[in-house]
Amino acid sequence: MDRTTLSRVTVVGTGVIGTSIALALRAAGVHVALSDRDKRSLAQAQLMGAGVALSPDDPPADVVVVATPPSTVVAVLREAQERGLGAVYTDVASTKARILADAELAGCDVTTYVPGHPMAGREISGPAAARADLFSGRPWALCPHPSTPAEPVRLVTDMITVCGGRPTVLPPDVHDRVVAEVSHAPHLVSAALAARFAAADETVLSLAGRGLRDTTRIANGAPVLWCDILEQNADEVAAVLEDVVRDLSEAARALRSTGRSRSGRLADLLTRGNRGRRHIADRVA
Amino acid sequence: MDRTTLSRVTVVGTGVIGTSIALALRAAGVHVALSDRDKRSLAQAQLMGAGVALSPDDPPADVVVVATPPSTVVAVLREAQERGLGAVYTDVASTKARILADAELAGCDVTTYVPGHPMAGREISGPAAARADLFSGRPWALCPHPSTPAEPVRLVTDMITVCGGRPTVLPPDVHDRVVAEVSHAPHLVSAALAARFAAADETVLSLAGRGLRDTTRIANGAPVLWCDILEQNADEVAAVLEDVVRDLSEAARALRSTGRSRSGRLADLLTRGNRGRRHIADRVA
Repeated sequence: MDRTTLSRVTVVGTGVIGTSIALALRAAGVHVALSDRDKRSLAQAQLMGAGVALSPDDPPADVVVVATPPSTVVAVLREAQERGLGAVYTDVASTKARILADAELAGCDVTTYVPGHPMAGREISGPAAARADLFSGRPWALCPHPSTPAEPVRLVTDMITVCGGRPTVLPPDVHDRVVAEVSHAPHLVSAALAARFAAADETVLSLAGRGLRDTTRIANGAPVLWCDILEQNADEVAAVLEDVVRDLSEAARALRSTGRSRSGRLADLLTRGNRGRRHIADRVA
Repeated sequence: MDRTTLSRVTVVGTGVIGTSIALALRAAGVHVALSDRDKRSLAQAQLMGAGVALSPDDPPADVVVVATPPSTVVAVLREAQERGLGAVYTDVASTKARILADAELAGCDVTTYVPGHPMAGREISGPAAARADLFSGRPWALCPHPSTPAEPVRLVTDMITVCGGRPTVLPPDVHDRVVAEVSHAPHLVSAALAARFAAADETVLSLAGRGLRDTTRIANGAPVLWCDILEQNADEVAAVLEDVVRDLSEAARALRSTGRSRSGRLADLLTRGNRGRRHIADRVA
């Protein structure tokens, strides 16, 4: 764990992401105050050693982390800024462009808000699934507004580093296009594959193997949260799905055909798949 | 490892599957003879302790395993039976109906041939990727012809058990429909996802995470082998892909729409995905 200039962080939302951030900060000796509408979730995070409950008398934190579902971030941020909960604010939502635009519209102070998105998660939710090392070595996107000064960005970057993450600064619209590619569209594709086994009989399941297990792992995400994420990034995700549908339709047509080009058309997709897989495997441990 | 009545097995084809079978049998004290057109592959498998090179003077084996690519199985089987290499024959190809039908047409003796398919593999190929425990706890399909007597089926079942696999007897057409679902179609879907990253730039790769890594793992398979597999099971695989395309097209349309039903349509797919994923995770360790 790196040295840090942070002394106090407040985490609003003690789900798996918020609690994991809190645990990582606590491990580095940072004072963490926790807040959640759900009293049981808050109590559980405290029991896990993630911090103490936020008190109205607490001094402002160095950084306030809004770790609530995407569609609630702007309202939670606005209230936190009105209450003066911290010097700098960030969030962990999977989409960035619309939240940043809505935050400006809602009158949030974007000079102290540095939108963030840790590229890590678990298929299970809630504080019990939290882990202090969840972000270790994982990318963590930051999408600051052009008007945000350097110091808030430095503070949030410091916090990410303490959590073990790799800060990556990029514009919000680029972020959203990229996460549609690497996360949101793959989630729906994995769900579509897994959905076929919702009513699978014993014979089908008896031959299921590790390939299917890995391909469908992320299909385990909570539907309510994922609807929220996907609707916040709808056009970008739809564009990727439309491309995937084109490739799979072409593969199905090749399989249905008997022409001599069949093998070549399948081999082209499989070869591109090999190349893309190599790039991914080279980057993700 | 269970006790076995097998004393001699011949493995034709020292790729990752054939060599893994040989290693598992050797570990149980079975004498294994190896054969491969590729002298280097054969030498490597021998160096790994997978067995000795098949000699023309060898007595017939209890079981001959044809572990060559799907499109070559019938020719290799026919030649092996003509040479009288063993009492009983099996193969490891990922498709069964066409191979069994072609074997009958080619004049193979289907009373001594018990078609098989171990549901395990690695994304890397060749003898160096072989592991004695590759089949441990994994399903291994057997699709005997109705005219095959009990004894050949028993011998091959015995061999599977020695390798640590779970023998599952089912008709060849059912096998092919099921593997299209659990393996062949997921392979193409994974390839279509991975293919998008064949020319991915640094920004896109910088945010790639473990979800994408797992979803695209099987896209690493060898295109030539996979074209062979997919063409042997073309109609079944196409039917699954067409269903997946329908679900993904519907999801893309929902995302492009602004109607109030959008969330419900996405939630339906995600919920079915959850349910299917649970069934898969319950069955595959």
